[in-house]
Formats: sequence, structure tokens, C-alpha cells
Amino acid sequence: MRIAVDVMGGDDAPDAILKGCFAGLEHLSPEDTLALVGPRGAIEETLSEHGVDDARLEIVDAPDVIDMGESPAMAVRSKPDSSIVRMAYIGSHRTDLETRADAVISAGNTGACVTAGIMQMKRLPGVHRPGIAVVMPSFHGDMILCDAGANPEPKATHLWQYGIMGEALARKLLGMPKPRVALLNIGSEEGKGTGIIKETRDLLRATPGIDYVGYIEGRSLFSGVADVVVTDGFLGNAMLKTAEGLASSIFKAITQEIVELDPELMLRFEPIARAIYAKNDYHTYGGAPLLGVNGTMFIAHGSSEPRTIANAIRTTRQYVSLGVNEEMARRVAECEALEQPVDA
Amino acid sequence: MRIAVDVMGGDDAPDAILKGCFAGLEHLSPEDTLALVGPRGAIEETLSEHGVDDARLEIVDAPDVIDMGESPAMAVRSKPDSSIVRMAYIGSHRTDLETRADAVISAGNTGACVTAGIMQMKRLPGVHRPGIAVVMPSFHGDMILCDAGANPEPKATHLWQYGIMGEALARKLLGMPKPRVALLNIGSEEGKGTGIIKETRDLLRATPGIDYVGYIEGRSLFSGVADVVVTDGFLGNAMLKTAEGLASSIFKAITQEIVELDPELMLRFEPIARAIYAKNDYHTYGGAPLLGVNGTMFIAHGSSEPRTIANAIRTTRQYVSLGVNEEMARRVAECEALEQPVDA
Repeated sequence: MRIAVDVMGGDDAPDAILKGCFAGLEHLSPEDTLALVGPRGAIEETLSEHGVDDARLEIVDAPDVIDMGESPAMAVRSKPDSSIVRMAYIGSHRTDLETRADAVISAGNTGACVTAGIMQMKRLPGVHRPGIAVVMPSFHGDMILCDAGANPEPKATHLWQYGIMGEALARKLLGMPKPRVALLNIGSEEGKGTGIIKETRDLLRATPGIDYVGYIEGRSLFSGVADVVVTDGFLGNAMLKTAEGLASSIFKAITQEIVELDPELMLRFEPIARAIYAKNDYHTYGGAPLLGVNGTMFIAHGSSEPRTIANAIRTTRQYVSLGVNEEMARRVAECEALEQPVDA
Repeated sequence: MRIAVDVMGGDDAPDAILKGCFAGLEHLSPEDTLALVGPRGAIEETLSEHGVDDARLEIVDAPDVIDMGESPAMAVRSKPDSSIVRMAYIGSHRTDLETRADAVISAGNTGACVTAGIMQMKRLPGVHRPGIAVVMPSFHGDMILCDAGANPEPKATHLWQYGIMGEALARKLLGMPKPRVALLNIGSEEGKGTGIIKETRDLLRATPGIDYVGYIEGRSLFSGVADVVVTDGFLGNAMLKTAEGLASSIFKAITQEIVELDPELMLRFEPIARAIYAKNDYHTYGGAPLLGVNGTMFIAHGSSEPRTIANAIRTTRQYVSLGVNEEMARRVAECEALEQPVDA
């Protein structure tokens, strides 16, 4: 297997990313290769600095970089030599078989990854619009949220396919025998929500092989009542970031109160906080797959640490080995072939 | 001043609501009256049970009830004798001056409150669509989020007016001299977001008297960088509920870890948690005003406790005394009169 990593993506690139790649080698077999995509000189320098010499490491030269703040469409168009575009290219079927990567990973500009991924890899047959699937810790086991930002204004058929692909992901990658699929809405009552939401509900409800459990409200998101939560990319992204910001604010507030009210408690509270972080660690999976492209792309958090990237290497390898894309393509074809429900 | 409370709204109605009304009397002057809207018999019974006899209390008989799960539009149309519809009616200018309430409060079905409010009270001159403004604690002082659920699919002009009305609310009710207004988006870069978001940004930026500080991401929502956050009702509602669910999940997770790792810590952690709750208590304001209706309606949380309702009575009284609606109407008229920016 061949995995390619954009070494220029993320807040602490290329250092954190390269360190993550070195650590990730342990998840690869002797026949696997890890392609480091970025400026050749800088990569070679870091390799020799760290005394890393592993025959499984390759360099794919990409002299240009897309910054975190750049407009995705414009950057992807104007920077064909950037690490993100080169990475997406070698992860696509446009590449010769011997240089093609089975999976690619970037912690860079999310929008640019999505744009480059769709442009280079194209879509799985039958998929209308790719979506980002994030595996979130929920205090009750893992949960998949899709879309987390690729498609801010989806149609009902896009959301429906996020349900189908998310369900396949939960079954294959997370090993859930019968994932419960829910649709994020502003209320759990049937009458709530926009026209698109109701249309998506009707589609999901009528789809064989989907255990559709109904609407879910934000309030219940972390209470373990669903395994796959379908939402649009705007809301999904905002929710994820809100959750992230709020969790960190709560722990800061706790620290502040402890310092004020009971400073001696600090030492004893630390292991508690550490245990919670360990159980709810977004670094565990390393990144979020872009579901629906004809290839395997994982988008890692901008603040990825070396262990995040090492975990992403482990997860993408599993993803490819388990045939997640093949299963998604099979399910999408199967469901698209069904008669669509008459306007319910 | 006359304030009307729907005693049948909320999970613990009518008991918790009536107790809240009794407690709320302390916020009223001797000339004020508090109208209890609900089934006369049940209210009289509770009054005598609690030995409450206050000349400022009145009963407005409303024999019917709209349940939490009912479809708002249908329920409001088919239940003219429900406490929500009666309450909205007496809070409107359709009522005779002597029976008219200056403000109304309900912890009932939010959608029904919004529907009844708009139908009965009509809109402030110039306002396109009313929106719910929630005052949220943010670890850095209070923050207003608007819309929190009244208008799930707003146009840019609706969002723009939420900024204008929210700014007036922050200035008048929260006493902020120059509230910072931000627009919730999936990124802080200018290129991010949907067409409606960009159109709203252009409108807000071109509006005199608005300190528009740019896009805000969910991640920064609780970090004190904005005083008024504008968003659509779908996202606003989902965010609020997610925040609520997550905060409660985190405290549950902490309790669980403490019990497992260091049970003796429990007693010492409790005051810390209490201090944080006290500083971030959604009961403080008692409810969320429906901005833009020609009247004053506060919508309280479904799980309102007696103190929530007492606080809502205090807050609505301030809201009316401070002339918040008048200020919003003045600002909306002033801004609507401006030349609209040419397609930016």
C-alpha cells in the first residue's frame, strides 16, 4: 500500500507532520511506502536532521504551498505545484498505477483539500457531492457526523447519500453491526424543519439497509442515541467548532474556579481532566475522510500533532484494507437503483 | 405596567410557573399587575393552596393548552382559547388599552409562541421577520445570539435586521455602550460562506451605528470576541442546544471520572461546579425576547424553574421600562431609510 502525506499542511507544518510520518511508519508493513509531498529540499533536510533513513519513505516534490487562509477554488487553480494539489493528483486514478497512492492525508486548508480532491479524484460512481465525515467522541462511544464542511448548501439527495455513506463507514471502519442513522434538526417532532430536511427524512426512511432513527436535536448529540448524524456542511462545521470551543472554555473555567476557590485541588483535578481528554480525543482517528471521492483522502485537524498524523496513517490504512470506498460505492449504487419514494 | 404569564407553558407547568409568578411579584411596583393566563379553576386552586392573595394578581381565563410537541401553525389556528394564543392577544395592540399587557411571558411551545406572537402582535414598522434573541453567558460576559429559532430560512435582509435589533438590545438592556456585532460563519476569512452570508456581511458593514467586527466561527463563540452574533434560526437553535447538551455531558463525564479515580474529590469539586453554573446560568434573564413584534414577548426555556419565571418578570419589566422596542423601531427605520449598498 502507498500512502501520501502533505507535509506542508497544518499549523505546525512541516515539522509536526514529518515527525508524525516517522512515527506512522510503525503502522506500515515492510512492503508499504509513505510518500512525503512537499518541497524536496526541506524534507531531505528534516530527514537527515532526525537521522531518519527508511526505505519505505519517498519524496514527491511539491515546491508550492496553499496557506490556511487562501480561497480554496482560486488557490487550487493557480497552484498546480502545491503540496495539496500534487497530493490529490497522486491519490487519483489519473496517476500511473506505480506512482498512485491508495490514500492521501493533509492537515492543510480544508476547502482546498475538498476542491483538489473532487477535481483530481473525481467522484465515486453515483455520488452527487462528496462530504466530510468526522468521527466524534460522544461520551457514549464514537459517532459519525457528515457533512462537516464540504457542502454548505446541500440538496436532499446529497444529505441522503451522506446517510448512506456514513452508515457504510460506521459499519466497516468502526465495526458497528447496525448503525443508527439520525438527521440533525431543530426539533425531534415530525413537523419541525425545512423542506430539505423533510425530503431527506422521507428518503432515509424509505431506504432499505438504513436504520433511520429520526430527527436528532443538538441537545442529544452527545448522549449516544445515534451512530451516524446527517447534516449540511454549514451546520456540521459550525457545530463541531462550537463543541470544540465550548469544551475548551469549560475546562478553562473549571481551572479558573479551582485556582480561586481551592488551589490545592489543581493537582488532583489534572488526572480527571486527562482521563476525559483521553476518552474523547479527536487525535485518535487522525483525520476525517472525504466520503464520495474516487480515492481515499483524510483531512486532518489544522492543529495536528505528530501522533495525529501517525494515527491518520494507521486509520487510512485500515480504511483502504477494509474496502470502505468499495462498500460505499456498492451501497450508493444499490440505493440509487431503488424507486424513489413518491412525494411523501 | 401589566405583565401576562402563560401558566400552562413549560415542563413543570402550571406549578413551577405559578410559583415563579408569586416570586416575581417582588420585582413589581404596587401599581403593576400580573395576569395569569390559563384555566381559571386550576389557577384559583393553586392560589388558595399556597395562600397567595395579592391584589396585583389577575386571572385571564384560557381553558385550552397547546402541547410542546404540537405543530405550531396548526395548534395556533385551531386553539384560539389556548393560553399561548390568549396571552399573545392581550399582549397585542388589538386589545383594549385597559386590558392590554405591556409584556407577555411563556415557557411553552416555542414555535407556537412565535406564530401566535406574529399573528396577534404583528410586526414593528419596517421589520421583515421577527427573530428570537437569546442572551448567552460566554465566560467573558453576556452575548446575544439572534436568531435562535424563529426563522430557519432567513433572507439576508432578515439577518441584517437581527444585527440591528440585537445591537439595540445589547445597548439598551445589557447596557453595553458599543456592542460588537459579528456574523456566524464557517470560517473567518472573507471568501467563506454562502451567498446569503456575504450579502448580510455587506449590509452590516455598510450600516452606520453598527460596530461590525466580521465573521465569527463556532470555535470563538465563547471567547468574548463579539457581543451580538447574527445567525439563521436553524443554526442558532442547533448551536444553543448543542452547547447545552455538551456542557451537561462534560460535567457528567467529570463526575463519572471523579467517582472512578478519586471519589473523595467529589465534595470539593461541587462548589467549583456550582460557581461555574452560577456564572453561566441561563435562568438569569428568564427568557429570550422575540425581537421585531409590536409588543413584548419573552419565551422562556421549557425546563423553566420558578426562579426562571421570576427573573423573566424582572427582565421584561426592564425591557419595557427601557424602551427597547422603541429603540429597535427607531434604528430599523433609520437603517431602512439608508441607501442600500450597490451589489458589493
